[in-house]
Amino acid sequence: MTAQSATWLDGNSTAVLPIPDRGLDFGDGVFETLLVKQGKLLFSELHLERLERGLQVLVLPDCLDAARQHLETAASFIRKQAWSWTALRLTVIRGAGQRGYTPSDLSPRILVVATRLDRDCGKMSAAATLSLADIRLSAQPVLAGIKHLNRLEQVLAAAQTQKEGADEGVVLDQSGFLTSVVAGNLFLVRQGDVLTPELNDCGVIGTRRRLILEKWCPALGLKVREAKLTLGDLSDSEEVFYSNSLQTVRPVARIGNQAWGSFPVCQALFGQYLEEIM
Amino acid sequence: MTAQSATWLDGNSTAVLPIPDRGLDFGDGVFETLLVKQGKLLFSELHLERLERGLQVLVLPDCLDAARQHLETAASFIRKQAWSWTALRLTVIRGAGQRGYTPSDLSPRILVVATRLDRDCGKMSAAATLSLADIRLSAQPVLAGIKHLNRLEQVLAAAQTQKEGADEGVVLDQSGFLTSVVAGNLFLVRQGDVLTPELNDCGVIGTRRRLILEKWCPALGLKVREAKLTLGDLSDSEEVFYSNSLQTVRPVARIGNQAWGSFPVCQALFGQYLEEIM
Repeated sequence: MTAQSATWLDGNSTAVLPIPDRGLDFGDGVFETLLVKQGKLLFSELHLERLERGLQVLVLPDCLDAARQHLETAASFIRKQAWSWTALRLTVIRGAGQRGYTPSDLSPRILVVATRLDRDCGKMSAAATLSLADIRLSAQPVLAGIKHLNRLEQVLAAAQTQKEGADEGVVLDQSGFLTSVVAGNLFLVRQGDVLTPELNDCGVIGTRRRLILEKWCPALGLKVREAKLTLGDLSDSEEVFYSNSLQTVRPVARIGNQAWGSFPVCQALFGQYLEEIM
Repeated sequence: MTAQSATWLDGNSTAVLPIPDRGLDFGDGVFETLLVKQGKLLFSELHLERLERGLQVLVLPDCLDAARQHLETAASFIRKQAWSWTALRLTVIRGAGQRGYTPSDLSPRILVVATRLDRDCGKMSAAATLSLADIRLSAQPVLAGIKHLNRLEQVLAAAQTQKEGADEGVVLDQSGFLTSVVAGNLFLVRQGDVLTPELNDCGVIGTRRRLILEKWCPALGLKVREAKLTLGDLSDSEEVFYSNSLQTVRPVARIGNQAWGSFPVCQALFGQYLEEIM
């Protein structure tokens, strides 16, 4: 089964990227992965807010209007193809560039890749098995929270997760505190409260994490907060789940030899998501 | 003045990279920058040794023979063009890849870019003015030492260096210890001994750093060692210089309001380099 996909560079359909490119040379850019339901971009404003923050941190020119326009080009294509669910990756690169780290005065490149998904993203995924990643995230407060292109830590953690046959991996920071899963944010429920790791020094502040913290938990009457959390806290939890843009929230059935069997908070949050996208 | 350059992907001349590409998507690869004198690759075995270590760390297939072959293709081109000095960037990317961090079973891509240099790399550069980078390198022992494609810290530091009109920037780690300059390794001379920061948690172990530590200092009868060093140590130094593959060693004339006026060790090391490349 081959994935169906389409790619645009600065709004034009393409299959190649002109070289040189600072995204390739140094990971000099940021990206977003949006979920598209029948040609409708979900929660695009949250993605664009994080993108805007990323552009500011990397001192890239404001190109939000162009990004919006190119996302719409892709959405229009998806509607014509009648794809039910699509992953849309938007990448903003500093530009072509010359040799060396110093960024010259460049025009950003905006790359959009649409990939048709087989999965029905209107149904919650089955509870996942998680491993524990050997690699720990490095602390870099300047880059924490944004979704930049320097993702080798995630690549190495994902490779280990796959090798161990797990669905996802728990990732710690250099001091051993919980940060996230490889491709998403981590949550646990203790005495009815929802907790998620602080992300001041590393990790990506997910759009669905924001919805859970700012909107969905409050709507459900659930107390929710960021905290410094350990593997011990995870063990003491009534429920564990993670979030990302393609799966929204996914319950965790097992980490190592610990298992969980019921996921009422995760199910309620998925219900909030369904209400929003109806 | 436009830089003259040429690009090969897997040995074939090209101006574009097929998308998707994991180098672009995640910085999933490693690179080397070699100096080429009249079509002769300088210190290529040291570059290939670091490349090999990088491939092992990232669990990439051994493609050293192909890398050697593509470097030779470029060197042959350079000889035909009769370029005096050339920077040759070799990038090994994990491959095309599909959506998501997990690396599938991919064929690595080898990209080689040759850029003609205007400067005479047989002459030592004039003493440099250095600024102090605001961004500090994050600690990631798994990736320390290798020259991977995740270089946003260097990009941000280089942007600041340029803005402040300096030639290079001193970069600290998160604890405030010296690590390097933005694009090279840092050395200082105290009571006649040559010292360079330890790079166990961050930074790139440069090919010229290895030559200085293992060969050139011993040949000159100079004591040399790695150490945990601070800005205070820098202030107490008789001489400061940095190394990289294009400049070999370059003396430092000024950092902030501190100035140095003589560079006998740096000059002696540059002499060792000249002897090797004659």
